[in-house]
Amino acid sequence: MTFFQTRTDLAIEAREMIQKEDQTGEIPGVKVEMEQKEDLKLKITKVKIMDNKGAEVMGKPIGTYVTIESPFLKENDMDTHEDFIRIVGKELIRLKELSEEDVILVVGLGNWNVTPDALGPKVVSQLVVTRHLMEYMPEQIDESLRSVSAISPGVLGITGIETGEIIQGIVDKIAPDVVIAIDALAARKASRVNTAIQMSDTGVHPGSGVGNKRMGLNKETLGVPVIAVGVPTVIDAATLVNDTMDQLLDTMKAEAMKEGPFYEMLQNVNKEEKYQLIREILAPYVGNLFVTPKDIDATIDRLAHLIAQGINMALHPGLDTKDIGRYIN
Amino acid sequence: MTFFQTRTDLAIEAREMIQKEDQTGEIPGVKVEMEQKEDLKLKITKVKIMDNKGAEVMGKPIGTYVTIESPFLKENDMDTHEDFIRIVGKELIRLKELSEEDVILVVGLGNWNVTPDALGPKVVSQLVVTRHLMEYMPEQIDESLRSVSAISPGVLGITGIETGEIIQGIVDKIAPDVVIAIDALAARKASRVNTAIQMSDTGVHPGSGVGNKRMGLNKETLGVPVIAVGVPTVIDAATLVNDTMDQLLDTMKAEAMKEGPFYEMLQNVNKEEKYQLIREILAPYVGNLFVTPKDIDATIDRLAHLIAQGINMALHPGLDTKDIGRYIN
Amino acid sequence: MTFFQTRTDLAIEAREMIQKEDQTGEIPGVKVEMEQKEDLKLKITKVKIMDNKGAEVMGKPIGTYVTIESPFLKENDMDTHEDFIRIVGKELIRLKELSEEDVILVVGLGNWNVTPDALGPKVVSQLVVTRHLMEYMPEQIDESLRSVSAISPGVLGITGIETGEIIQGIVDKIAPDVVIAIDALAARKASRVNTAIQMSDTGVHPGSGVGNKRMGLNKETLGVPVIAVGVPTVIDAATLVNDTMDQLLDTMKAEAMKEGPFYEMLQNVNKEEKYQLIREILAPYVGNLFVTPKDIDATIDRLAHLIAQGINMALHPGLDTKDIGRYIN
Amino acid sequence: MTFFQTRTDLAIEAREMIQKEDQTGEIPGVKVEMEQKEDLKLKITKVKIMDNKGAEVMGKPIGTYVTIESPFLKENDMDTHEDFIRIVGKELIRLKELSEEDVILVVGLGNWNVTPDALGPKVVSQLVVTRHLMEYMPEQIDESLRSVSAISPGVLGITGIETGEIIQGIVDKIAPDVVIAIDALAARKASRVNTAIQMSDTGVHPGSGVGNKRMGLNKETLGVPVIAVGVPTVIDAATLVNDTMDQLLDTMKAEAMKEGPFYEMLQNVNKEEKYQLIREILAPYVGNLFVTPKDIDATIDRLAHLIAQGINMALHPGLDTKDIGRYIN
Repeated sequence: MTFFQTRTDLAIEAREMIQKEDQTGEIPGVKVEMEQKEDLKLKITKVKIMDNKGAEVMGKPIGTYVTIESPFLKENDMDTHEDFIRIVGKELIRLKELSEEDVILVVGLGNWNVTPDALGPKVVSQLVVTRHLMEYMPEQIDESLRSVSAISPGVLGITGIETGEIIQGIVDKIAPDVVIAIDALAARKASRVNTAIQMSDTGVHPGSGVGNKRMGLNKETLGVPVIAVGVPTVIDAATLVNDTMDQLLDTMKAEAMKEGPFYEMLQNVNKEEKYQLIREILAPYVGNLFVTPKDIDATIDRLAHLIAQGINMALHPGLDTKDIGRYIN
Repeated sequence: MTFFQTRTDLAIEAREMIQKEDQTGEIPGVKVEMEQKEDLKLKITKVKIMDNKGAEVMGKPIGTYVTIESPFLKENDMDTHEDFIRIVGKELIRLKELSEEDVILVVGLGNWNVTPDALGPKVVSQLVVTRHLMEYMPEQIDESLRSVSAISPGVLGITGIETGEIIQGIVDKIAPDVVIAIDALAARKASRVNTAIQMSDTGVHPGSGVGNKRMGLNKETLGVPVIAVGVPTVIDAATLVNDTMDQLLDTMKAEAMKEGPFYEMLQNVNKEEKYQLIREILAPYVGNLFVTPKDIDATIDRLAHLIAQGINMALHPGLDTKDIGRYIN
Repeated sequence: MTFFQTRTDLAIEAREMIQKEDQTGEIPGVKVEMEQKEDLKLKITKVKIMDNKGAEVMGKPIGTYVTIESPFLKENDMDTHEDFIRIVGKELIRLKELSEEDVILVVGLGNWNVTPDALGPKVVSQLVVTRHLMEYMPEQIDESLRSVSAISPGVLGITGIETGEIIQGIVDKIAPDVVIAIDALAARKASRVNTAIQMSDTGVHPGSGVGNKRMGLNKETLGVPVIAVGVPTVIDAATLVNDTMDQLLDTMKAEAMKEGPFYEMLQNVNKEEKYQLIREILAPYVGNLFVTPKDIDATIDRLAHLIAQGINMALHPGLDTKDIGRYIN
Repeated sequence: MTFFQTRTDLAIEAREMIQKEDQTGEIPGVKVEMEQKEDLKLKITKVKIMDNKGAEVMGKPIGTYVTIESPFLKENDMDTHEDFIRIVGKELIRLKELSEEDVILVVGLGNWNVTPDALGPKVVSQLVVTRHLMEYMPEQIDESLRSVSAISPGVLGITGIETGEIIQGIVDKIAPDVVIAIDALAARKASRVNTAIQMSDTGVHPGSGVGNKRMGLNKETLGVPVIAVGVPTVIDAATLVNDTMDQLLDTMKAEAMKEGPFYEMLQNVNKEEKYQLIREILAPYVGNLFVTPKDIDATIDRLAHLIAQGINMALHPGLDTKDIGRYIN
């Protein structure tokens, strides 16, 4: 049995779509845990894909996907901002334990010049990178700091080189123990845009993210564990049309227009066919169009700061927020 | 007879929508002329709304709307770029004759910080403004230059002041003969985004443009003629969904599913009701979501340069392109 | 007796220069108070110019100049950041008491496109502006909020209109009780760049700030009290050369080269003449060249946030930091 | 005999400094050719360092340095812009002949976030990169195109990795025949800022450029020829002070203050010592301060476009300007 899936990079959305199809609660091979904090309107969902069966149904590789959701994330709120920094740092460490000597490479995926795809490069520009300091002036460096380096290689259309190849070349040179890859994602629901952070231990796989990727960044391609951290910043235009149309039909149905052969036909039309039709209608614009909130510029800046500080706290546990300024240029 | 209209700021799109309804070629009170240039894939359409009847049907005020359309406009093509600059300059002059002594104020509407809404401010930053030079060092100024000043006041959400009030205050101080207002617009068709420039002698009216305006910039509010220049840079999300759904139904119909009471019902459903339903479904995201091409950052920069140079040539006919650099800081 | 002054916008630097000349502690007509906080390495200096004599000697108008200095200001330190926000808010209120009904207009001076001159526009973009909300939806607005509007008119070279004229036009329209003007300043000492915030109740006077101004923003020109808030973000190139040369001579002197007629001549050369010579040598580049730190982009962003939040707290005392996000778009 | 050199990355400035010391025209081991074009106020200087002696005197490695100088370069002049694009393309090809099959990697050095250091990344973002197209859709690619890829790795302070290491890693992966490295440079004379383009076949050496480099990009480190292309965008603050002081002394001398032991002493003071004193006085700000024109943002954009198009024409001779847009995203 396969499920057709319109575009989402979020494991929690993949799960919702399958459950809607299925009408049963459980998905075989998939375990879900949830945690909530009222004051932050926070929901942390841990989706564990445990075997090949789960992976096939979910359309995502085996591994753990932690999603931090809160409407506050997209808001300009200084107080909760610090709470979320701590939560990101803590969940990152729970996802992947690090030893004191681990050498880390952080990769910022995406395109500086396209606002909703700039999350990765913006996070990288705010990290406490220490590898060069440890090499050139080890005596000045606090013992509690790990060796961290970071790069934003740019997208295929600008470099002409697969991001995977560039990172392989750098991994060969500097031999990190763990890679952390930051990426902007596509969501299915408008309400999730800029209100969720997904972290997983499965790395990045071809076809995910806002840009197109032909090659993954994961243990198979790089030889070391890869943690992926992402925020949905756009909705695919075809997905938005498709889902809105489904909701429109539901609304019409509820409003007692539910008889007639055509309605049933439309209801029962092969879902993948309908989605393909929409894509064709939107072509040649689809793939080139995205749907994004008006305040995306300011929101991306804030989320990049939040994630960068969360990573800084996770990688350099001895560093308090007062010290971070000294290490960021 | 009134027509319901989904969101478009373009007179040529308003006309297309009405003709589709009507199936007749002519719209009473509206005159249309067209001109084409093969090498530039260029189409110049002049829509003249001549009386109140035309204005009511079109949903736009009486006046002339010139639209310059070409797929090259959104492309990074240095050769055609210069041709379009000349065309913009020429059409602007045809729309509004200027005397040598006319004092001009150019207003860049929109928000610097929101890429698809930044067209106006970006045009303003590349204009040859001369008013201060004429006042402080008239002897150094070429006689062929007109007095030009320019301002980008920012949007209501940032200033707390209606753009119209700000411009009224400035118009009171500097008493221009003509105001030219630059704005980013919303199109209905994805194919028109960044491929059309509309110029009209009717000014800017409440509710048009990418941002929300509560007060117009036109002869009634400012006391002087206002030329509006705009480029559609976004599609409204609800419009995209609505139009894609209509096309999907057309496709299904063509594919012989045309019977059944439901289909007819959907066909005949009050169009405004359907659009309102879609808006409600997309709410609370609608109004906050826009649909825009991925390369919007680079395209806006190019179009802003093109329009600014076109205006420079129209306002300062004695200035050749070599000289312009000396006057732009 | 007049003192020649190389370029500084800071009252505390003007005072230092005069005291160095004079070798006496006191300046007639000028009163100075100082306050320190060890943990923030903070020094708050209040310079009061009390009469015309003080104004002449200081080369600045009668009024109060409060300067908040700390090396932490230019650092990326989240903890002290919040302290400085509170201090800016508190000192602003001490400088100018506001009544509950006061209507405020904040003016961001300077040029968006020139990093060290972009402080004003960046502050404005982060203010809680409320004037439009109070007008269009008063019931939704907290009673504790004041009516605040804000504008960044752009510089003379881009608008062709004196900033003073633009602001006069807007003041005529919206009739504020107080204007707050934010500007980037020029310092004399490299160590003060980005480490000081000056607030004064004298407004902005011609010739101050990073850009050139021919017209002031003050009670005389606008008819309402004007509070000026500024940060030194650049040093003038000629000032840097002049002061470094003086220090070089001092160093040489200390190194026992202190005899000879030429040295004395150079020591005694008319200071203004020497500075003019340096300006001429640097011309035609002077006026066009500035000296600024490499990390100016990030530092300006941080200082703009700090000042904006400080102003938000001063103008909307009922608003806690949690609420601010709701009002900033 | 060694000459002390204040900071310059330009071979033509190094030569001027030596000639001023020497008062003779010729420098042993160095050959100079010059070419001029009146209409463009253009001077093309080819400095050839032919042997170790020349390299030692000039303080630069053996090789050819071509400098294109014109005051028009920093101006916003559309007509000469295209001429300069052609000249950059032609001189690049004269410096390094390329075969049809040569695979090229372009490296943009410098920091996106620091305006005068952003030249390299800005050039890279406008190149016609083709390597991925040739790999994934060779049938769609014009035969006249070369395989070009490009990367802007970011600076050491942001990545924690030497740029040289990153590029070595990528060179190992994609095996280019030639590397072209773009960098912002430091000039000695204010008049050269943004008015010169230097191209050399010697690659990039440690200590050059606006940022600090500890490792070069040249044939020795990468194993393939490296062409360096640079524009001076800043002057070092200590160099500006030093040179202005020297000019001041010359002026004073001309004005008949030429007697006295002190003046002679200052004249004869060891030049390196004086420069070191100035650096110490400016410390701890030196290295952190740069001197740059106010219009640097707009000028860098224009020069990046010019150099990118020049490189595009040199690398893809079959491509005319009309086609370039199709390949740039």
